[in-house]
Amino acid sequence: MGIIVQKYGGSSVADPEKVMAVARRVVATAREGHQVVVVVSAQGKTTDLLIAKAKEISPNPPKRELDMLLATGEQMSIALLAMAIHALGQPVISLTGPQGGILTDTQHTKARIRMVDGARIRQELDKGQVVIVAGFQGLTPNNDIATLGRGGSDTTAVAVAAALDAAVCEIFTDVDGVYTADPRIVPGARKLKVIDYGEMLELAFQGAKVLQPRSVEVAAVYGVTIHVRSSFSDEEGTLVKEVGSLEREITVTGVAADENWSKVTLVGVPSDVQTLCAVFSALAQAGINVDMIVQAAASKGRTHLSFTVTREDLAEALGVIDTLRADQDWEVFADDNVAKVSIVGAGMMTNPGVAAKMFEALTQVDIPVFVVSTSEIKVSCLVPRGRHLEAVRALHTKFELDPEK
Amino acid sequence: MGIIVQKYGGSSVADPEKVMAVARRVVATAREGHQVVVVVSAQGKTTDLLIAKAKEISPNPPKRELDMLLATGEQMSIALLAMAIHALGQPVISLTGPQGGILTDTQHTKARIRMVDGARIRQELDKGQVVIVAGFQGLTPNNDIATLGRGGSDTTAVAVAAALDAAVCEIFTDVDGVYTADPRIVPGARKLKVIDYGEMLELAFQGAKVLQPRSVEVAAVYGVTIHVRSSFSDEEGTLVKEVGSLEREITVTGVAADENWSKVTLVGVPSDVQTLCAVFSALAQAGINVDMIVQAAASKGRTHLSFTVTREDLAEALGVIDTLRADQDWEVFADDNVAKVSIVGAGMMTNPGVAAKMFEALTQVDIPVFVVSTSEIKVSCLVPRGRHLEAVRALHTKFELDPEK
Repeated sequence: MGIIVQKYGGSSVADPEKVMAVARRVVATAREGHQVVVVVSAQGKTTDLLIAKAKEISPNPPKRELDMLLATGEQMSIALLAMAIHALGQPVISLTGPQGGILTDTQHTKARIRMVDGARIRQELDKGQVVIVAGFQGLTPNNDIATLGRGGSDTTAVAVAAALDAAVCEIFTDVDGVYTADPRIVPGARKLKVIDYGEMLELAFQGAKVLQPRSVEVAAVYGVTIHVRSSFSDEEGTLVKEVGSLEREITVTGVAADENWSKVTLVGVPSDVQTLCAVFSALAQAGINVDMIVQAAASKGRTHLSFTVTREDLAEALGVIDTLRADQDWEVFADDNVAKVSIVGAGMMTNPGVAAKMFEALTQVDIPVFVVSTSEIKVSCLVPRGRHLEAVRALHTKFELDPEK
Repeated sequence: MGIIVQKYGGSSVADPEKVMAVARRVVATAREGHQVVVVVSAQGKTTDLLIAKAKEISPNPPKRELDMLLATGEQMSIALLAMAIHALGQPVISLTGPQGGILTDTQHTKARIRMVDGARIRQELDKGQVVIVAGFQGLTPNNDIATLGRGGSDTTAVAVAAALDAAVCEIFTDVDGVYTADPRIVPGARKLKVIDYGEMLELAFQGAKVLQPRSVEVAAVYGVTIHVRSSFSDEEGTLVKEVGSLEREITVTGVAADENWSKVTLVGVPSDVQTLCAVFSALAQAGINVDMIVQAAASKGRTHLSFTVTREDLAEALGVIDTLRADQDWEVFADDNVAKVSIVGAGMMTNPGVAAKMFEALTQVDIPVFVVSTSEIKVSCLVPRGRHLEAVRALHTKFELDPEK
């Protein structure tokens, strides 16, 4: 029947009743004849509580020691889940990330998985046991414990599935799949039966929170099929996998919105390469991620330059720019009232006019577009925040994603 | 200056202020030029809270998984203490029991240390770092985490000190040393400058709670000098080490009381070996520890047999005896109103009449003695509970342990 990897997030194991519910689902899967590996996160708010404990001792604790502390969160949840599965009469063993062969680099608090040594997991599976592996953590070459940073448990699950050549990696969440748009915004949004890795990656980057981008990258590289499904029902969710271009029926697969952006405009800045380089180098050095960039045509050696940064980074970005500007004569404007709407679809690579159709849809409902950026499978527009949900609905209709009447 | 191992219990690191206080003491020791290894327990009531979490899931969790859960308690405290020491500007690294090379057998929840592989600890010390090692836990040959059971952190500290050939193993507690008797019972009790391993072991077994017997055994085998001292002062405490017989000045080193015992008497039981064997085998099989045993002279093939069990075990012991007795004609009496008082001293081996002097002291204050047991360096008497503190004070005076007037 093959190996199935199941991943449960922190909210799925937040209290003893939820732990028992997860245990019942795991045992049901095992009794269907599958070998089951379970990846689990820390319970509920545990990680936040541990960080608060650290801050009581030191405002800036060493990252290695923070990882030592945070890793206890998943270690608790794997032990408790193992106890629950054992109580249901199913042989089971829990493994920490290091015991599970999750080998990482040495970037504490945001380590990346270098490889998964699946020997111990296979050995325990072959004894007829369910194997529970702690998400979000692994072992560095120095024999230290490292955590993977945000969304690390999804990545652990996909990497373990790749190492074991698992039939599928099931990611259990509080939604029942990937939708053409957020159903809370677009009531007519439809659940996708299947979505391509590239599309899923763009949707994840463009604000769909169902999967962490890093886990989709790993799945794409190793060809792991992800099944995104609900913790609360047995319904089929959405498969994330390689989709051949012949199978594609629609140009646009999904619409996403992300309101976590703000726009910075440099007015009358020198249009020489050195100045532009200086701006983006300074931002990069400050660890500030720049998303969309647009530059107006230069005139008399001067230009207008706009770019977006996250709302959290805005104050710091303006500080960096001010230092750089010093006593020069160009000006800076910030607009914290924008949002990004995106359409994603592998089909648009071979389908010209998608961007034009997007502008048309937004114009029809009178929503201005400030900045545009495109990739082969995505078009994003910066629009006024407060109107971005309306934009999503208009695009969902324009690209014929609404349910048929 | 040599290596110093320091051990701090859970109450010494119960909150952030206490963690900082321990950190200051550790840093002060390091700045005197010592290489310092710190062994620390889980904070305050953490272990009890974790056990309660497990019980919410399962009344009888697998011991391996219980160890997986409990080990997080020390992992948290080592990380927090490392953060505190780092905040004081001292290079430091924390190591779990497995990382610290604490290798145990596979008896989960009460594992014994097989050996300490000090390579990683030495390597980190040689980088000029304070090394913090999680007490109470280690690594089994199966690469699993095991806990050592009660008092495990003391044993970890002594075993680490032995492996590193440390100059001394300092055990920090809430008392400032080992006394001739409990100062709360005997106001004139004197702090011992030094005590022999054998004496310390008997005192620990006879109710003195300052050190766990197992840690004293390990210290004796490897010749580790233990310094029992206060977490709250810089005063010298008590050294536990090999004391040559020529150095001994006094016959009795200390007096201890333990009120956790009850007495069972079998009246008119057959005096044949088979019956006695059956009684003690049945108790052993039920995991009941029998301490003192006394048998009256037999008459007509019948005898009276008394023995002591802990108060917690009394009900179960009576159940075992009742099953065994079935329809036979002998009777059982239980006395839950007893306590054990003991005098301990390596000097009594070569000093006859110590037991006689003990009975004399108790007779003088009119305290009856129910049962007596002796070893080469100890005499214990079972007396009525409620009078045992008076007995301790009388013995303390009789053996000239009171301060000189």
